[in-house]
Amino acid sequence: MTQKRQKGQLIVLSGPSGVGKSTVISELLSERPDIYFSVSFTTRKPRVGEEDGVSYNFTDRATFEAMIARDEFLEYAQYVDNYYGTSLKIIQDKLDAGVDVLLEIEVQGAAKVRAKCPDAVLIFISPPSFEELSRRLHGRHTDDEAVIEGRLNQALLECRQIPNYDYLVINDKVSQAVAEIQAILTAEGCRTKYRENLMEGV
Amino acid sequence: MTQKRQKGQLIVLSGPSGVGKSTVISELLSERPDIYFSVSFTTRKPRVGEEDGVSYNFTDRATFEAMIARDEFLEYAQYVDNYYGTSLKIIQDKLDAGVDVLLEIEVQGAAKVRAKCPDAVLIFISPPSFEELSRRLHGRHTDDEAVIEGRLNQALLECRQIPNYDYLVINDKVSQAVAEIQAILTAEGCRTKYRENLMEGV
Repeated sequence: MTQKRQKGQLIVLSGPSGVGKSTVISELLSERPDIYFSVSFTTRKPRVGEEDGVSYNFTDRATFEAMIARDEFLEYAQYVDNYYGTSLKIIQDKLDAGVDVLLEIEVQGAAKVRAKCPDAVLIFISPPSFEELSRRLHGRHTDDEAVIEGRLNQALLECRQIPNYDYLVINDKVSQAVAEIQAILTAEGCRTKYRENLMEGV
Repeated sequence: MTQKRQKGQLIVLSGPSGVGKSTVISELLSERPDIYFSVSFTTRKPRVGEEDGVSYNFTDRATFEAMIARDEFLEYAQYVDNYYGTSLKIIQDKLDAGVDVLLEIEVQGAAKVRAKCPDAVLIFISPPSFEELSRRLHGRHTDDEAVIEGRLNQALLECRQIPNYDYLVINDKVSQAVAEIQAILTAEGCRTKYRENLMEGV
């Protein structure tokens, strides 16, 4: 299908810690291997099983702050005492090459991307309920009770930002959530502003 | 999935004569029997195989003009010397009952619906090319050459209105067109404005 823009679609995914973003993203990328998943930079310590350059580009505070000074981020934010940021150049190169780019960022970062890229599609992934989120965070067995408490409070704050997103996908069943994201991406590709009018100039 | 609105979604489909709207709609409705397909009123004569109350509510000019006088239409328009109109009351009752309603109307009518119902989803169905549209109209064997010529000219005018639509679906393969419409409806249902924030009020 011919599209007016040659550029890829910028897709922003947010959602509270524990909502299952990683599982949803991993399933989505297995169905859509053409999407480039942007790996964020962070100063947070790797969790068990997280790999540098795959889950995140893990870096230290001094390096991150030097990158801020060189204006190398599309967005960056501080969250629970750690920096998270998205490299501007990598994203731009992919979009210019017509590749769809998926960003997983928290609500502050998403708001900054929205301001800089009005055409970005912002999707918020929500748990089916607060109780279910609490259950998932406890089930992860990676954080102590105080950290979980902090994440739950943070989740409530984040969910207040949902009106700033285009779409809300509720992650009850992963397959259903992924199907909805796929539908959103298909629909966005059908927007008249991106599609060539094939009867034009006849 | 809980939605903020109790009301159904109003879906407007337009596209030039011969693009295959009827086939697309019939396939869509067989996959989504929950959608109410609004049957328009028209003063045009039935084509072979068209049934009163199914394809259209066929009526005469005097009756149609009396309905206009009684303000009974959501929209109505004149097109190739015939009136086409959509009953306001039927649509409203369905939407209020939470039923999604599909309207097939031409571009003038769609613009009027947009003005009255800003939340309506407007989808334009386009042929893959002008040549293909001409081939389809000739293949239908229902109209003489002068009528086909008129339809092709009309199609060019209609396609200029594509920017007023939200989505453009190109009917190359019917199954693909229907899949895209389904994706659009799923995506529209995921819009944050229609979905309840399940973390609200915790």
